Amino acid sequence: MKWELLTTSKLSVDEIHEILESATGFAIGETWQPKGKVFISNLFFEPSTRTKSSFEVAERKLGLEVIPFEMQTSSVLKGETLYDTVRTLEAIGTDAVVIRHSADNYFSELHKGISIPIINAGDGRGHHPTQSLLDLMTIHQEFSRFTGIKVAIIGDILHSRVARSNADALTRLGAKVIFSGPDSWINLPELPEGCEYMEVDDAVREADVVMLLRVQHERHDGKVLFEKEAYHQQFGLTAGREKLMKKDSIILHPAPVNRGVEIANELVECSRSRIFKQMENGVYIRMAVLKKALQNKNGGIEHVHANQKWQTAY
Amino acid sequence: MKWELLTTSKLSVDEIHEILESATGFAIGETWQPKGKVFISNLFFEPSTRTKSSFEVAERKLGLEVIPFEMQTSSVLKGETLYDTVRTLEAIGTDAVVIRHSADNYFSELHKGISIPIINAGDGRGHHPTQSLLDLMTIHQEFSRFTGIKVAIIGDILHSRVARSNADALTRLGAKVIFSGPDSWINLPELPEGCEYMEVDDAVREADVVMLLRVQHERHDGKVLFEKEAYHQQFGLTAGREKLMKKDSIILHPAPVNRGVEIANELVECSRSRIFKQMENGVYIRMAVLKKALQNKNGGIEHVHANQKWQTAY
Amino acid sequence: MKWELLTTSKLSVDEIHEILESATGFAIGETWQPKGKVFISNLFFEPSTRTKSSFEVAERKLGLEVIPFEMQTSSVLKGETLYDTVRTLEAIGTDAVVIRHSADNYFSELHKGISIPIINAGDGRGHHPTQSLLDLMTIHQEFSRFTGIKVAIIGDILHSRVARSNADALTRLGAKVIFSGPDSWINLPELPEGCEYMEVDDAVREADVVMLLRVQHERHDGKVLFEKEAYHQQFGLTAGREKLMKKDSIILHPAPVNRGVEIANELVECSRSRIFKQMENGVYIRMAVLKKALQNKNGGIEHVHANQKWQTAY
Repeated sequence: MKWELLTTSKLSVDEIHEILESATGFAIGETWQPKGKVFISNLFFEPSTRTKSSFEVAERKLGLEVIPFEMQTSSVLKGETLYDTVRTLEAIGTDAVVIRHSADNYFSELHKGISIPIINAGDGRGHHPTQSLLDLMTIHQEFSRFTGIKVAIIGDILHSRVARSNADALTRLGAKVIFSGPDSWINLPELPEGCEYMEVDDAVREADVVMLLRVQHERHDGKVLFEKEAYHQQFGLTAGREKLMKKDSIILHPAPVNRGVEIANELVECSRSRIFKQMENGVYIRMAVLKKALQNKNGGIEHVHANQKWQTAY
Repeated sequence: MKWELLTTSKLSVDEIHEILESATGFAIGETWQPKGKVFISNLFFEPSTRTKSSFEVAERKLGLEVIPFEMQTSSVLKGETLYDTVRTLEAIGTDAVVIRHSADNYFSELHKGISIPIINAGDGRGHHPTQSLLDLMTIHQEFSRFTGIKVAIIGDILHSRVARSNADALTRLGAKVIFSGPDSWINLPELPEGCEYMEVDDAVREADVVMLLRVQHERHDGKVLFEKEAYHQQFGLTAGREKLMKKDSIILHPAPVNRGVEIANELVECSRSRIFKQMENGVYIRMAVLKKALQNKNGGIEHVHANQKWQTAY
Repeated sequence: MKWELLTTSKLSVDEIHEILESATGFAIGETWQPKGKVFISNLFFEPSTRTKSSFEVAERKLGLEVIPFEMQTSSVLKGETLYDTVRTLEAIGTDAVVIRHSADNYFSELHKGISIPIINAGDGRGHHPTQSLLDLMTIHQEFSRFTGIKVAIIGDILHSRVARSNADALTRLGAKVIFSGPDSWINLPELPEGCEYMEVDDAVREADVVMLLRVQHERHDGKVLFEKEAYHQQFGLTAGREKLMKKDSIILHPAPVNRGVEIANELVECSRSRIFKQMENGVYIRMAVLKKALQNKNGGIEHVHANQKWQTAY
């Protein structure tokens, strides 16, 4: 039975805890490597620096052989379907594929005919489960729990891959979710159960975690809905608004950041910001997810650096 | 003396048998690795998923260091010649190059000034020797011989890199080749010796191997010669036509497949189809070819998994 | 304290000698490898074959893990700044970055906020320190000294990344620099101290090293300033002009070469030419630079092939 990761919502609470624990192990120096040569391919049909590089680093740390795939030189240009592309990679010996694609739920039919695990690295406006998991890891790292933690998700919720799946996972884990942002980007009548809407200032004041979403210019078909400065003043985390935050509250952002839009330039690396910590955690999360997907295949070798001793912190 | 692979027609029958035998060894688990770090580069000037990825997997399985080359960011954009590009790669320590290029016989002058072996991964409408070899391997795997085997090559023979070189190799190996397809895509007066023309239905009925060729829209300068459905009905392997095939006959296709054009969608993975088996075999063929090109360099280490014993099946 | 390489002019004479000596060690078979997995990324925002591939080979020879970065699929397309891109790579565990960028001095602010070393692989019309170093290595290889050596730098000096930094380094090392080429491409009033201008024929006659510069069509905004043949006759190294050279003088060119423009086609690989030797040396220089940048991190392992004994030649 293959294990793969398509959406956060299909992960049980137990699976989430298991992945976070495994990622925490990697964060403190644990290593794992599958037996023999294991091949993986990262199929990114949309631009990405951090997600793609993060998977690459995770894969190399696990000792995997990464088979490059470049959309611009692939047979996709000759009209090949995604199924045939993935089926081909499977035929030539790839053991798992990581896919980012602009189509929502690109995997809904795909994964049935493919016997190797698919790790979803983002589908259209749909899901981005490893991003959700790294957000969860960063929150847990800070507060050592989810129960009672208030997370304000602010911004372009309609177009965000992570807003809804994060809300879903967080509420299942016991946290409280607050949505905020422009009315036109929040579907108020269909607010998920357990979630609440607040004005931006109230959300920032209330939250333990201020999770800003990226204004995704590239998904608005070229329409400019807000001037940058206007958005920043109304809905962004300005220097002034940051002062409303509680003493130990932290800032998250999935990046890439539009500096001076979602967040003031000078706050990107301020002491509350966990933005670059999120990126670091992303590598550990992806290691944990890949390990879980690949370990059924042929076992693998658990390494612990000989000179290290620790209590699993999670 | 360097050994390289430019065209199938320059391979002797003995060399073909040697490569197929070596590939069969890799297929059943044999391994080989050159001594020390050996560098290779894949220069693909045309889109490709399977050939490029297949070479990549083969190279990693042999433990080679693959130096990435992306046409879009190369000095070819500054007008550098192919010779200077390859000569550069040689100067910096590359031990062999794999090249796909849109120019027929791009290698005719090139290979004289270059001292490292060139593996041709496709030149214009010319040759594609590793594809030919993997076709041969797949046929031999099925029938354990070539003598007397009837292979029908159906479709766009004029634009096909593999049709003519396959026909040449197959007849030299003792098989019988039947050409079929649209009149305008077969040069009847110049049919190679030992080859025969048949109507599609007769060819399908007669053949042990039905080898469909890809309709290469990208090589027809944008001219549409056939509507997809019309081509499918007249020359494609429809569900109906498949019923004309002999009990043990098999289907080959070099892929990427135009589903519903050369072959009915539901036949791509039917029990007669060896299309994905061909892809798998492609990795072993490329391992065998690379081994043959590199082994003169510095020896290499023959590994056999300790827990395996076999009679070389070939 | 991190060591990084941004410009040649910031290198002391001692550092230059140290790098050349280390590179010479690599040229004669010495090896070095950092402890554990070390990650590096090559960020090339401009086309390049040889510099990028040369870094790749150098990195693989040092056993580094190279995280691919393709501009065309990066978040730079979403408007991400260079700082955020590099900061991201740092966050996910990259230990050093190699950057080529079209902006002069792209690193002037960047390197302050980044704690990992940056190796400059070319900035706009500015610097290209590893190219300068490989030129120096090739000269020293030939003459075993710099003092008194006359180097004629001929061509497009205004747009050249290496002309000025080479002139600076060469004079500091004791060599004598002669500039030559079209008036409009040399800023005569601002000729660097210790440098001299000569007509092309005189420069060729006088020099121990004839260093031709590439006519960089791609940096002239599409303006054609010279017909190719006219440039070749007036300022290029023609077959006739080569006969003016002293018996043991050599030819350098940073490549890619415009054959028949800067240099006659038949001279590119003539016995005086060190053009492909320069490329080979580039790998050793980059190994030396990377070693110097990475060795502070975590030590590293000095290997010497057991079967080799040598006197360090430098």
